[in-house]
Amino acid sequence: MNEKLIEIISKTIADTISERNSLKIPVGVSARHVHLTKEHLDILFGKDYILKKKKELMGGQFAAEECVTIIGFKLNAIEKVRVLGPLRDKTQVEISKTDAISLGLNPPIRESGDIKGSSPITIVGPRGAISLKEGCIIAKRHIHMSPEDSKRFNVKDDDIISVKINGQRGGILENVQIRVDEKYTLEMHIDTDEANCMGLKSGDFVEIVRDNRS
Amino acid sequence: MNEKLIEIISKTIADTISERNSLKIPVGVSARHVHLTKEHLDILFGKDYILKKKKELMGGQFAAEECVTIIGFKLNAIEKVRVLGPLRDKTQVEISKTDAISLGLNPPIRESGDIKGSSPITIVGPRGAISLKEGCIIAKRHIHMSPEDSKRFNVKDDDIISVKINGQRGGILENVQIRVDEKYTLEMHIDTDEANCMGLKSGDFVEIVRDNRS
Repeated sequence: MNEKLIEIISKTIADTISERNSLKIPVGVSARHVHLTKEHLDILFGKDYILKKKKELMGGQFAAEECVTIIGFKLNAIEKVRVLGPLRDKTQVEISKTDAISLGLNPPIRESGDIKGSSPITIVGPRGAISLKEGCIIAKRHIHMSPEDSKRFNVKDDDIISVKINGQRGGILENVQIRVDEKYTLEMHIDTDEANCMGLKSGDFVEIVRDNRS
Repeated sequence: MNEKLIEIISKTIADTISERNSLKIPVGVSARHVHLTKEHLDILFGKDYILKKKKELMGGQFAAEECVTIIGFKLNAIEKVRVLGPLRDKTQVEISKTDAISLGLNPPIRESGDIKGSSPITIVGPRGAISLKEGCIIAKRHIHMSPEDSKRFNVKDDDIISVKINGQRGGILENVQIRVDEKYTLEMHIDTDEANCMGLKSGDFVEIVRDNRS
């Protein structure tokens, strides 16, 4: 009886260690969203408006209660696009390719913050609207991790790797960017097209399979 | 001068042969669409209505001029969903996972025609509406080819293979079904989620990379 118990406990501990040491990465699916500057928040929601925190996200970011409507070249609207806080020094709209086609836009696939020459887009809030000359991108798929995790995975900031997805819609996503920072927790960020193509949802796991580091 | 000409001609011929013998497969992106029975066409468009051919598709199928509106559990609508002809013996609605989420449905990923136990959906036409208990699926990605092509690719009907996609959003799609028939021309059919995830559009090329035949 005692031997059986020891066996079970040993197995549980072994499984836990193995899980912790595995190269599995949890997925976070990013729906379309908007980052705003103070100036643009004032125009869309009113002077000195303060965003209400709805849900904490990684690295001090949060999903706000507030949503906006976005409009592209076809003049049709996508409604209820979530605003993310805190405020940034550049306003940025992140949409999927599916959204882009529906809006008549052709945004580049970019890392967050890199909006030079990206697509124009109009953002409408309850108090006003702004028409940006640039600012709309499709987010480049990426993995956030801590410096500790980067050692464990044997990758470094800005590395480009590939990721394996299991399941009925499984496969491999190449050109995944590694982003290492003290304030990051381990998570692969993909958009809704990537999630739906590969049969993934937030909380599912993927694995690094190949390392294309230069 | 003659030597130069011979060189150019030889190279052109060699390139043509190499292209013809390559294992490249053109992509066709399927947008959401509906196949109807005679009975359902009558309800939606009127007694003995005849679909108008808009565009010929592979294997005797065609895109019709006619569109319908589809409605799921959330009671929101997706408009302008293309009807495909000719009529079938089962009504079937093919949507993307992105569409499914927006409609509040969870359809299975299935081969066309295999609708047993699939999602319920409502279809609305200019003369009436039908509420199906089953019939809504997400199409399983597949490659149509002739028996001749199947020899060239060394695959057979119903094989499951993997496909390599190049480019900024490149990667590998696994679980791709081979469908061989005399009336098929070579084409890989994917839905809009798969196209947008992998940066593909109709007419782009992919390659078979691995063969999981049992």
